[in-house]
Amino acid sequence: MRVTIVEVGPRDGLQNEATILEPAVRAELCDRLAAAGLSRIEAASFVNPKRVPQMAGAEEVLAATQRRPGTTYAGLVLNERGYERAVAAGVDEIHYAFPVTDTFALRNQNATVADSVALAGRLVARAREDGLRISVTLSVAFGCPFEGRVEPERVLQIAEQVQAAGPDEIILADTIGVGVPRQVRELVEGTRALGATVGCHFHNTRNTGIANALAAVESGAMILDASVGGTGGCPFAPRATGNIATEDLVYLLHGMGYETGVDLQALIACAEWLAERLGRELPGQVYRAGGFAPVAG
Amino acid sequence: MRVTIVEVGPRDGLQNEATILEPAVRAELCDRLAAAGLSRIEAASFVNPKRVPQMAGAEEVLAATQRRPGTTYAGLVLNERGYERAVAAGVDEIHYAFPVTDTFALRNQNATVADSVALAGRLVARAREDGLRISVTLSVAFGCPFEGRVEPERVLQIAEQVQAAGPDEIILADTIGVGVPRQVRELVEGTRALGATVGCHFHNTRNTGIANALAAVESGAMILDASVGGTGGCPFAPRATGNIATEDLVYLLHGMGYETGVDLQALIACAEWLAERLGRELPGQVYRAGGFAPVAG
Repeated sequence: MRVTIVEVGPRDGLQNEATILEPAVRAELCDRLAAAGLSRIEAASFVNPKRVPQMAGAEEVLAATQRRPGTTYAGLVLNERGYERAVAAGVDEIHYAFPVTDTFALRNQNATVADSVALAGRLVARAREDGLRISVTLSVAFGCPFEGRVEPERVLQIAEQVQAAGPDEIILADTIGVGVPRQVRELVEGTRALGATVGCHFHNTRNTGIANALAAVESGAMILDASVGGTGGCPFAPRATGNIATEDLVYLLHGMGYETGVDLQALIACAEWLAERLGRELPGQVYRAGGFAPVAG
Repeated sequence: MRVTIVEVGPRDGLQNEATILEPAVRAELCDRLAAAGLSRIEAASFVNPKRVPQMAGAEEVLAATQRRPGTTYAGLVLNERGYERAVAAGVDEIHYAFPVTDTFALRNQNATVADSVALAGRLVARAREDGLRISVTLSVAFGCPFEGRVEPERVLQIAEQVQAAGPDEIILADTIGVGVPRQVRELVEGTRALGATVGCHFHNTRNTGIANALAAVESGAMILDASVGGTGGCPFAPRATGNIATEDLVYLLHGMGYETGVDLQALIACAEWLAERLGRELPGQVYRAGGFAPVAG
């Protein structure tokens, strides 16, 4: 069985790093990831560069990337202005993300959840007109740093509203890394029951990320976000660590008999390259320990 | 449902640390762990201190520990001489471990697998006579650094021979951290089918440790080894990282609705205390990120 990995390292992975990488280096990262077999790459964030200086030069990243045939390049957008920039920059795919709690939504995007759902509808409609794929991510779906526990019923209610707009997929995100597989199974199954194609986005902050990823695919999620080397974090949770590491995820999935299309050794080399660029050891485990051929294939 | 955690931090956790802790400090670690609710503690290793200087003074550790009522204190032994030392030191429980591949067994203990199975029989018989609990651990059951992939049939064959001797439990150990949940499910179910009470011992070297732990309990394993802070490693695999962190495991298990008897906040404090003693940040994630009350309970 096939699981599609969406590589978010160039965006979610780098947006909280102390070391700012130039657009040309981020484009090279995209190229190396594509060469390792990652077929979907979140290449840039079309947000205000004053708010997130790490993501400045999104257009330059897209322009410098060697668009590999068969690979799709996505841009994160948080509003219609960002959408327009992403389209002008030539992305293949739009990623729109919003938090499912009002407290986080107001702090993060100065909008309520209801505003965000309405915006999701407008963005999906525009993407349809423009012939672009679009995914909608529900952030803090497993817990919120301000509101604490998030009830699954509430997430599913929002997912239902989003699904009515008809995005290509809905991504359930554990933005602060508090979720456990029990929640994953419930939310993935509930969202699938709405007729959605479901993906998940996990952070490994409390070491549950890989267990959650497995629970997700075994519950029918077809898509998993991950970042090479396990880079990333959350600006609102200072001690939060990164996304699940793509190479750790690939090691697990291949060991479980899933196909990903990714060359693990090439991906490990990519993590080593990125660690040098960032001047620090990254949280991923497999790039340090090495694969184990008889299991990882 | 209840899952029993065997805290192996004072033994497996510390045996590869660069910083050697005095027996009195190791005894204090045991006391802190017991106070946090860990009811089974692997307190010491009765091996040759010339081979493992970190474990010197096993008798002193046992003597200095405040034996908390209801808590059992175990010692690792690798031969009958060690068994006799452990009994004389007053352990409640014997842990005997041997590798399931001849290459590792010969390098590690200068014995074949057949020799080790025979020794297991003698140790179980002696423990029965002495009225002590005894568990037998099958090391490198998920992969061997020298022989590579280990066939489950081979592990189950050895498990059957061990089970015939009648230990209290059989622990399946992923010594070098290469296993994935598919293997865990197969081996746990196969070993249970032999009539054994089954436990598992995971290292998080490739980030699969927590996913493996969940697979183990969901397949009917009742016992999980873990080390506070995720300390530990393998002398034969220099880049291997530690055992799964006890506090990370407790976070997962509580979130999944299992009972452990452990106070997560007290355990986090214990990990912080140990990190100070060892003078380094430990691999555990939850002690750095903090719990998340609505999930972790």
